[in-house]
Amino acid sequence: MKKLTAALGLAALVAGVAVAVPASAQFAKTKDAAEYREGAFVIMGNHMGRLSAMVKGQVPFDAAKAQESARIIDSVGKLPWEAFVPNSVSDDMKADPTKDAAKFKDLTEKFSVESAKLVTAAATLDGLKGQLGKTGGTCKSCHEAYRK
Amino acid sequence: MKKLTAALGLAALVAGVAVAVPASAQFAKTKDAAEYREGAFVIMGNHMGRLSAMVKGQVPFDAAKAQESARIIDSVGKLPWEAFVPNSVSDDMKADPTKDAAKFKDLTEKFSVESAKLVTAAATLDGLKGQLGKTGGTCKSCHEAYRK
Repeated sequence: MKKLTAALGLAALVAGVAVAVPASAQFAKTKDAAEYREGAFVIMGNHMGRLSAMVKGQVPFDAAKAQESARIIDSVGKLPWEAFVPNSVSDDMKADPTKDAAKFKDLTEKFSVESAKLVTAAATLDGLKGQLGKTGGTCKSCHEAYRK
Repeated sequence: MKKLTAALGLAALVAGVAVAVPASAQFAKTKDAAEYREGAFVIMGNHMGRLSAMVKGQVPFDAAKAQESARIIDSVGKLPWEAFVPNSVSDDMKADPTKDAAKFKDLTEKFSVESAKLVTAAATLDGLKGQLGKTGGTCKSCHEAYRK
């Protein structure tokens, strides 16, 4: 089966077309993996935006809402990484995280540490002001490494 | 400001074009709201698929993975509903949930009850087999009401 999959993969590579080879156990196609991680990033980005609006004073600070957004960022933020399966680089990416798994793991773990801190920090406006940039910084360093 | 927003909304309606009127406090544009809820549905659908594969015996049952998927369905399943903001009906929808908020709330609450049960049920294969269809049934009744 492995040989068959490899042969199909090679045939697809040679022909330059996509065939229905499962991208992984979790994602039938690389397109599914890309949509999954992009879905998670949309949700995370939306809640980073809500927190940013509170920090900037565009929206009144609300501890319950801020902590809810932080919890969503922290929990949904555990999802996208497994969806960076081999050969699933999207048009908006400049590098493949699977080529250097240790580097990628390190970047995602740094985010995970700072997103966990955000949940507690978001209980107060000062806490949120202090932590949002640190959490966002770990998003940014990953974007700079992989995103165009 | 409310008057201005209403006037812009009316102008857009008359002209039949989109203008940059915030769709809600949480979503700057109706497109943002649609992407947010679609992102959540992609994640939920992916994990429903993983559970379905275990029930069908396509993938070996794994209690930890099954409960993790159930927890993701249950928690991400709390997100999409607020993103059905007025005038954000997508091409794949046949009805606007905001036109009958009570009906929509009832359907989403039924899902919420059955997704919570899924977390416990997924501890065993028999439990998962018994509950997956019930949870999926609440997805389906909402899809039948609003999705083409």
